[in-house]
Amino acid sequence: MKQIVEIAKKSREAAHVLSNISSGKKNEALNKMSKLLVKKRGYLIEKNSKDLAFAREKGLSNAMIDRLTLNDSTIEGMAKGLSEVAALPDPVGEVTSMRRRPNGLLVGKMRIPIGVIGIIYESRPNVTADAAALCMKSGNTAILRGGSEAINSNLAIAKILQEALREAEIPEAVIQVIPITDRKAVNEMLTLEEYIDLIIPRGGEELIRAVVNKSKIPVLKHYKGVCHIFVDSSADFDMAANICINAKTQRPGVCNALETLLVHKDISGEFLPLISSKLREADVIIKGCERARAIVPELEEAVEDDWYEEYLDLVLAVRIVDDIDGAIAHIEKYGSLHTESIITKDYKNSQRFLQEVNSSTVLVNASTRFSDGFELGLGAEIGISTTKLHAFGPMGLEELTTTKFIIYGDGQIRT
Amino acid sequence: MKQIVEIAKKSREAAHVLSNISSGKKNEALNKMSKLLVKKRGYLIEKNSKDLAFAREKGLSNAMIDRLTLNDSTIEGMAKGLSEVAALPDPVGEVTSMRRRPNGLLVGKMRIPIGVIGIIYESRPNVTADAAALCMKSGNTAILRGGSEAINSNLAIAKILQEALREAEIPEAVIQVIPITDRKAVNEMLTLEEYIDLIIPRGGEELIRAVVNKSKIPVLKHYKGVCHIFVDSSADFDMAANICINAKTQRPGVCNALETLLVHKDISGEFLPLISSKLREADVIIKGCERARAIVPELEEAVEDDWYEEYLDLVLAVRIVDDIDGAIAHIEKYGSLHTESIITKDYKNSQRFLQEVNSSTVLVNASTRFSDGFELGLGAEIGISTTKLHAFGPMGLEELTTTKFIIYGDGQIRT
Repeated sequence: MKQIVEIAKKSREAAHVLSNISSGKKNEALNKMSKLLVKKRGYLIEKNSKDLAFAREKGLSNAMIDRLTLNDSTIEGMAKGLSEVAALPDPVGEVTSMRRRPNGLLVGKMRIPIGVIGIIYESRPNVTADAAALCMKSGNTAILRGGSEAINSNLAIAKILQEALREAEIPEAVIQVIPITDRKAVNEMLTLEEYIDLIIPRGGEELIRAVVNKSKIPVLKHYKGVCHIFVDSSADFDMAANICINAKTQRPGVCNALETLLVHKDISGEFLPLISSKLREADVIIKGCERARAIVPELEEAVEDDWYEEYLDLVLAVRIVDDIDGAIAHIEKYGSLHTESIITKDYKNSQRFLQEVNSSTVLVNASTRFSDGFELGLGAEIGISTTKLHAFGPMGLEELTTTKFIIYGDGQIRT
Repeated sequence: MKQIVEIAKKSREAAHVLSNISSGKKNEALNKMSKLLVKKRGYLIEKNSKDLAFAREKGLSNAMIDRLTLNDSTIEGMAKGLSEVAALPDPVGEVTSMRRRPNGLLVGKMRIPIGVIGIIYESRPNVTADAAALCMKSGNTAILRGGSEAINSNLAIAKILQEALREAEIPEAVIQVIPITDRKAVNEMLTLEEYIDLIIPRGGEELIRAVVNKSKIPVLKHYKGVCHIFVDSSADFDMAANICINAKTQRPGVCNALETLLVHKDISGEFLPLISSKLREADVIIKGCERARAIVPELEEAVEDDWYEEYLDLVLAVRIVDDIDGAIAHIEKYGSLHTESIITKDYKNSQRFLQEVNSSTVLVNASTRFSDGFELGLGAEIGISTTKLHAFGPMGLEELTTTKFIIYGDGQIRT
């Protein structure tokens, strides 16, 4: 597909220009985008209505249609997001680790953009503005490929963002939406390793697996979040219950929600009835291991597959473990390297859990729901990585950059 | 191939154990390995002689046989390398960026091993000890796959390293050499993404391309080093000549040697004859652009392909450019993102070059030969990356690790 190659080439050219554009100018463009989105909301809502009409025709679910809808409030949300990105510190150009070598060379690292980033996502059109802004702020050009059901909305948003780029005298090709909804377009894009440096897919496990299987370009992604809480024998029961309820029910459909609860055997007789009754009050279905069901017989039966399951729903798997070693071994075997928390009063166990559990986010006495770019202080989040290469855990602007070595000499040669 | 899967599985299990072994214990094992290699050099030389006999039978070149040979001095070199790695600081466990969030959570990053690393390399058997040591020190297990011509030497080295691991009570599977020389073994290894986290190929471009094409596992690599020096109009001629001669001739067969010299047009009439005569004294064949040949007619003709060429030999391409923009544009088009240097007295041009050239190592007034892990102060080098993801430039121990988020709470939930 020639058109996709052309888009990628233009993006590569624009990336060279963008990598040397000042923060001030990038922020100016972001703020212009923000204002223009609000100003042109009539146009956006009109284009969005085409997508909505088609979605209704196709019989998409109300939840899908809801996620697809642009209105005054969602457009203002997008606009606010853009000006928030403008206000974040720019990671590009930061110089660190400057050290003098014995031969007088001054060696350091300068933070630079990655280059061209392809974002592949599903129905929410606000991702178009959000992802484009994060890429641009970190000096990267973005090639955006949203779901076919949002194509009119996505193209309309991109048109407005490009208008702002023009006004700020930044190449329009810094932000491009792929206008072809055919799957072949995305497959072609995933082969263009010469022009595209990185792919970030955002969506369900199925989408992400399809992208990883096709891509010749490095992919930063997580497949799923099977997050665990281990309630240790010394845990404060109120704190443990509070955190479990929060982690499971505050927003069950997201990747950092609790999916499996591990309970220390010594407290299971007392804690399990307590937490079960609280969870059931919150309409949570509990699937327990045999030992758990011996204590609370009303629990449904958990089978082997349940330990691997990301329910994304008001369902929780519960298992009794002998001790912290049992908890760590369970997480090592069934976990997804996403987020795990221990609830404990014990100093040694808190340190062991932080040390030995090598998931991307590990907490002591706090809800798994904090595994999030904003909550961890990254200022924004472009996605979460559960692959250890390049970035591990929530990714903000810095994770969209890399570093090069810079060296100041005065004639040094190697002997 | 069941045997390869078994090796990979064992490596994954050992990685979990190794990630929690103290620095002291890892250093103890490295020092034991160092001593044992020297102690058992008779055994090594005997096993190596099998490889050498076979190499002579196959009619391998003297250079190849030289690289393959183990003797007292190369074995002592390997042993010294191991104790030097033992003396390096351990990156694992370092905690950085600890910050208190508004809700009281204490959020930071802890450095952890990547996990299981596959190293694919060519004939030098010393890479077996060197790569294994760097992986182990950074908490990673190593699966080593050397060239078939060195198989007896590599297996003998691994046997000694494993003996030291046993003595130090560290699982032997921390270091494994693939005993099968069939190419199918390496192809199988490259599909085991479930067990292996990272592949590092070390060798020629052909080997690396073959690995990248087959691998489902992330690969850190560079294909080639087409390194440039730009001699600016304000350059000190003595310094420029010194640096060019050093970068081209000190060790022409390595990736950070100079391949293309760019000369500012304003000084070309004076500098080009000077550097040409010095290069010819050092037996360097020079291929010049038309403008260069108009000044020094004896130069051979450079064609378009020469600008992409990594000669790895006493051959140099020379091009006259109009100014720093011409030099940066040439590097952008023909460069390999490896290493580039500017020779200048001009403040602005030095800053522009450092800023605008996004190769992995960028120097001012110094030889490209400094693009090396030891020279840049990393303490060691496992390889060089010209891909911007994860690591860019020479990679030391830190580049064999990643970070996870660690969070200390006291009952926080998300609202």
